[in-house]
Amino acid sequence: MTIRYLEDFEPGQKFGSPRLSVDAARIKSFALEFDPQPFHIDETLARDSLFKGLAASGWHTAAMTMRLFVDGDLNPAGGIVGAGVEELAWPRPVRPGDELHLESEVLEVRPSKSRPDQGMIKVRTTTLNQNNEAVQVFVGKLIVPRRPSSR
Amino acid sequence: MTIRYLEDFEPGQKFGSPRLSVDAARIKSFALEFDPQPFHIDETLARDSLFKGLAASGWHTAAMTMRLFVDGDLNPAGGIVGAGVEELAWPRPVRPGDELHLESEVLEVRPSKSRPDQGMIKVRTTTLNQNNEAVQVFVGKLIVPRRPSSR
Repeated sequence: MTIRYLEDFEPGQKFGSPRLSVDAARIKSFALEFDPQPFHIDETLARDSLFKGLAASGWHTAAMTMRLFVDGDLNPAGGIVGAGVEELAWPRPVRPGDELHLESEVLEVRPSKSRPDQGMIKVRTTTLNQNNEAVQVFVGKLIVPRRPSSR
Repeated sequence: MTIRYLEDFEPGQKFGSPRLSVDAARIKSFALEFDPQPFHIDETLARDSLFKGLAASGWHTAAMTMRLFVDGDLNPAGGIVGAGVEELAWPRPVRPGDELHLESEVLEVRPSKSRPDQGMIKVRTTTLNQNNEAVQVFVGKLIVPRRPSSR
């Protein structure tokens, strides 16, 4: 696993992730704890909702995306430390049986003015299903340490 | 429980929520599934991290906030259907033993131009701990049906 410092990032770089399967039981148990609405917990009620079938809570999709991001190829030194969310959208529902993966692209790299030991990268992470349809788009900033100088 | 249609909302209205306690075991089990980084799963490693102690994953805080929102007083007719996130930030860590609640404020109410049966409300929801310190700020748009006319 390659650990990356601020100096290792540049705009346009792309990173992938492993894949994660979504099953109906976890969609429902996550929703029962965190988002207990009919269209996330009951197939029959979901069929008559605007989702037209059981769909994962957007917050479940966000959490699964975080897992794929942690297990993915970007690997910033110091871990994944968020410094703000610029965009978060769920253009399509996540369904039971879907298999998700990520495509992340570095949009911006900026050294900190006040902290010479770190900087910020802005990353757009798209969560895709098995048909390569986007189910979540997330643009966030991460704090990344600079490479320690060898003195 | 009062169900609210688009006509029942106006800018400046405020809504509350019940309270939810956060325990160390759930912080760790959520993180083991969705955000397995040292500062979310191990007290000792967390002490030496920038969080200076065990802290909930931001996605766990977002999920708990959704639960409080569903159980809260806003109650839009048709359920809570997101139409986009404008802001999401975690200004302070959530700690074991914290007790969270919400303060939501309606910022904007807008009937749809293309869909005469619905509209959009923009809501800022602040998640507060027991000391009334903000641990999450979330600004999102919800789709809300208009009151059915009695014809």
